[in-house]
Amino acid sequence: MTQHSPIQAADAANAPVVAIVGATGAVGVELIRSLEMRNFPLSSLRLLASARSAGRTMDFRGAQVPVEELTEDSFAGVDIALFSAGATISRKFGPIAVAAGAQVIDNSSAFRMNDDVPLVVPEVNGDTIGNQSGIIANPNCVAAILTVALAPLHRKHTIRRLNIATYQAASGAGAAAMEELRQGTLAAIEGRDFTPEVLPHPYAFNIFSHNADVDPETGYNGEELKVIAETRRILARPDLPVGITCIRVPILRAHAMAVTVEFEEPVDEAEARALLAEGAGLRLVDDRAANHFPMPCEVSGGEDVHVGRIRRDLGDPSGRSLALFIAGDQLLKGAAQNAVQIAEALRA
Amino acid sequence: MTQHSPIQAADAANAPVVAIVGATGAVGVELIRSLEMRNFPLSSLRLLASARSAGRTMDFRGAQVPVEELTEDSFAGVDIALFSAGATISRKFGPIAVAAGAQVIDNSSAFRMNDDVPLVVPEVNGDTIGNQSGIIANPNCVAAILTVALAPLHRKHTIRRLNIATYQAASGAGAAAMEELRQGTLAAIEGRDFTPEVLPHPYAFNIFSHNADVDPETGYNGEELKVIAETRRILARPDLPVGITCIRVPILRAHAMAVTVEFEEPVDEAEARALLAEGAGLRLVDDRAANHFPMPCEVSGGEDVHVGRIRRDLGDPSGRSLALFIAGDQLLKGAAQNAVQIAEALRA
Repeated sequence: MTQHSPIQAADAANAPVVAIVGATGAVGVELIRSLEMRNFPLSSLRLLASARSAGRTMDFRGAQVPVEELTEDSFAGVDIALFSAGATISRKFGPIAVAAGAQVIDNSSAFRMNDDVPLVVPEVNGDTIGNQSGIIANPNCVAAILTVALAPLHRKHTIRRLNIATYQAASGAGAAAMEELRQGTLAAIEGRDFTPEVLPHPYAFNIFSHNADVDPETGYNGEELKVIAETRRILARPDLPVGITCIRVPILRAHAMAVTVEFEEPVDEAEARALLAEGAGLRLVDDRAANHFPMPCEVSGGEDVHVGRIRRDLGDPSGRSLALFIAGDQLLKGAAQNAVQIAEALRA
Repeated sequence: MTQHSPIQAADAANAPVVAIVGATGAVGVELIRSLEMRNFPLSSLRLLASARSAGRTMDFRGAQVPVEELTEDSFAGVDIALFSAGATISRKFGPIAVAAGAQVIDNSSAFRMNDDVPLVVPEVNGDTIGNQSGIIANPNCVAAILTVALAPLHRKHTIRRLNIATYQAASGAGAAAMEELRQGTLAAIEGRDFTPEVLPHPYAFNIFSHNADVDPETGYNGEELKVIAETRRILARPDLPVGITCIRVPILRAHAMAVTVEFEEPVDEAEARALLAEGAGLRLVDDRAANHFPMPCEVSGGEDVHVGRIRRDLGDPSGRSLALFIAGDQLLKGAAQNAVQIAEALRA
């Protein structure tokens, strides 16, 4: 327990024991950072990963915390287990953690559409956190960032349909994809050959349709189908029509999206801007004179979702549609930070 | 004339004298390449540029052609003048070239909306080339690539509205922007500071709203307004509602776009695919099983526009909308190649 003592000293005696499953992955690292940044009270932190990573240590609040191998016995005494190691691991170990008495907050897609598992973006539907099965699902990164920006409009006006085109970062495919983007780009600049191994297409100075499998029937890929289903669930609009195209662009860790929102009745552009300026977790970045709008380089590493380019959609003569551009850190609001916010809401 | 002799030998005696205004720019270089690739018959080629570039030579069909300074006397004996040196140069020297007897094909925005100047994408509205004032306008790069992909659908069915999100390359901002993207990206990988000078925002692993000035009234930028106006004109649909968001992404020379097309009546996905597979200047790249769709890296340097991801828009419950993803070389079909195709049509 030597490694844990600085943490215990820093927190209240009755603070929870927190475990991170998948601690060494791209999101795992950000979970540790989010717990630090948000000063989450905990009595000890347990870092769990595959046998391959066990034995390493990782820094948390100045202490070196050992990485332990994830096993069926890992959850004894754990109060909150933050899972981010893929759907297969969540399906196997999530119920084991619940049986051991832990509250699971799961970043994978394993339980997101289960009726007894709330799918939560605290700024949007934090009220759904109660009455659950021991597992709370953290949404897909696009759905989380999107719904934070839609929530202030959705609360005041009825959305009739959505049209979305995404500009998605490498981080959604993990740390290895981020490194492949860096290495492939360096090779391209230096004129060297480079064969991608993590992602299916060249990423240097290129974009491609999201690498999730494509449904042969509808032509939509798995990422798009997740965003549609999860956005409907988070907004409690089970039949909301959503059209979406998900594209990977050579960005490291922030997602952006061009969104057209059609409402039941015309919504004034100025009113929408005022609602978004006050939105929880949102920052309005909408300076036409300076041509300054949401950008990945300005949201990366930050907690807020940026929204701007608020304007009437010239493609809808009825005047019922507005266009927006949205950006957010994929690893923070799109994953780790949202999970920690759920943990905060649980304690509140 | 020593430099010109290899060209004269290669072409018919009554072939035209061709001049390129802005020969050393990103599009100018591709105009030379397109004349070569398409084996355009000409009796001599004159390369015109600013005084700064005069004195250089550039390779054309194995001969070294001198770059001359553009002056009011540059067009004596010129039959076809291909302009690509910005709207200010076109406004000044276009009429001078016409007065000297040249047919002007202008790549700038200077004359695109003039009633007596045809705005031409040969595959789409090549029939409008006749009866003109001596100037033919080459469209904005997004409008050219977009309308090639829309034309087969537009000919058969009435388009009711369009929704477009673009993924635009550095090349649209010129050769210096392409170099800034390379250098800024290298600096980012190496952890060095880099201050952009050509474009207003960092470009390395970043995207940003198109750098054209934003109309303070509507919130649309100049690029978006051009695409709307030019697409309407090329399709001869002056009131077509078009919503669009133009975004620069870190790609060197190919534009891509996610497009939702709403028709007056439902259009079958299979019929659309068949029409697009036969479309002039188009290649269908639509392999769901292999997750292989249009990509900048596969259209760069090529003449065809790629179209794929053809599917019903799940955001339109009426079933009248289809979604497409389109990519084309910004410097070729988006600029130089289209201008050379116009020159070919003029001679035919």
